[in-house]
Amino acid sequence: MTFTIFFVLLTLATAVALPNDVVHLLKPHSGSAGHKHHGLNCLSWRLAVETNNLRNWTQVPATCEAYVGHYMLGKQYGQDCAVVTYAAYEYAKGLNLAKDGKDVWIFDIDETALSNLPYYSRDTIPYNETSFNAWVAEAVAPAVPASLKLYNGSVKLGFKIVFLTGSHDTFTEARIKNLKAVGYTTWEKLILKKAGEGSGVVYKSSKRKELVDAGYRIRGNIGDQWSDLLGSNAGDRTFKLPDPMYYIG
Amino acid sequence: MTFTIFFVLLTLATAVALPNDVVHLLKPHSGSAGHKHHGLNCLSWRLAVETNNLRNWTQVPATCEAYVGHYMLGKQYGQDCAVVTYAAYEYAKGLNLAKDGKDVWIFDIDETALSNLPYYSRDTIPYNETSFNAWVAEAVAPAVPASLKLYNGSVKLGFKIVFLTGSHDTFTEARIKNLKAVGYTTWEKLILKKAGEGSGVVYKSSKRKELVDAGYRIRGNIGDQWSDLLGSNAGDRTFKLPDPMYYIG
Repeated sequence: MTFTIFFVLLTLATAVALPNDVVHLLKPHSGSAGHKHHGLNCLSWRLAVETNNLRNWTQVPATCEAYVGHYMLGKQYGQDCAVVTYAAYEYAKGLNLAKDGKDVWIFDIDETALSNLPYYSRDTIPYNETSFNAWVAEAVAPAVPASLKLYNGSVKLGFKIVFLTGSHDTFTEARIKNLKAVGYTTWEKLILKKAGEGSGVVYKSSKRKELVDAGYRIRGNIGDQWSDLLGSNAGDRTFKLPDPMYYIG
Repeated sequence: MTFTIFFVLLTLATAVALPNDVVHLLKPHSGSAGHKHHGLNCLSWRLAVETNNLRNWTQVPATCEAYVGHYMLGKQYGQDCAVVTYAAYEYAKGLNLAKDGKDVWIFDIDETALSNLPYYSRDTIPYNETSFNAWVAEAVAPAVPASLKLYNGSVKLGFKIVFLTGSHDTFTEARIKNLKAVGYTTWEKLILKKAGEGSGVVYKSSKRKELVDAGYRIRGNIGDQWSDLLGSNAGDRTFKLPDPMYYIG
């Protein structure tokens, strides 16, 4: 693991977002995240990001780049994910499902069901849409292990799964192939974004309203961005996976 | 710093809540927080608490007691608070105030404006309401430094300050004395709970509605519990200070 990997990891981390999203690029420049502190405590910064205290940040603070790289590629990220999905599963187990096929659990895709870390760390070319689209088209992203476990548990409990992503619908076939390859073998709906469908909270709220209007009950909702979890019809409970790499508003 | 201090810290940490609150006691027993993991990662547990992924937890996991004690009494807690209030002040500075005396910033009191850590760590007797009430009556709690700084900044910017607390109104004089003694010298309203006013989100939402009905605009709201920040009229933006010691629903 070299500094280059961290650099690339951070440079490319915006890759999961698509043109319609309000994306705040994550670049290893100096500046940011609303902070000019020199001695910024990176753990404090990450906590403030995860608690939605820091919003609309455009880049990881320069002094925290290596920290975030280590975090994402080390053990802590995986353990943090595991506690979140453990809490989600404990909640899910306690619900009474109507068994009418309308109890839904929503999963976001990028950095929730699937991880794009291999892309971020596999070469030294800064992020560009072309190379990221090529990565998505390869359909080889691994599962986020904790999310796959929650998915399997939820399916077994009788939830209908809805994948709701900001990915453009031109990637529908690639996403299906990728999801199936890593173990997400069944779902009720896979919702990708069509041109002109807005971004972030607006897009996701609108798609969730369609689900509710169709008679679904959103019992749980998990994502790595607060914009997956805020807005209308967010779900009876929401679960926030960590993502200190980029912010989607 | 001894284990005893941590023990007491955790045992007593429920002290700030009053009888009407839905309080989940923090006791150094084995068991839970919804977790039976043996090798539970305490940093992951704390992150899950702060992000509201873990709710209604009744106690710090046994394996994390010393960790939480170290966290609260060490530097990290203060730095975490400072990043939150820095973000809050950056947001506050960017607002246009109407200068009609109706732009309000809400501060919770316990573990937000004032810290009860000296009580939790000053003796080895487990928490009891009598001794905690005596502590409140002493009116010697120090300020949470980051909050006092935000308070001073907000006052200077022209916000009207509202202290909104679950403390019972029998402590009104003590709270006034304590707030003034540590530097919170002015406010628009100091709202303490009257008998029968409900708890947590319900109580705080109801009091905020009274503010809005009276023509106030809640521009910001800061507290250490999610129940300070959720519900109706929560504020244009909310800021969550860390508190891994106890949960108030």
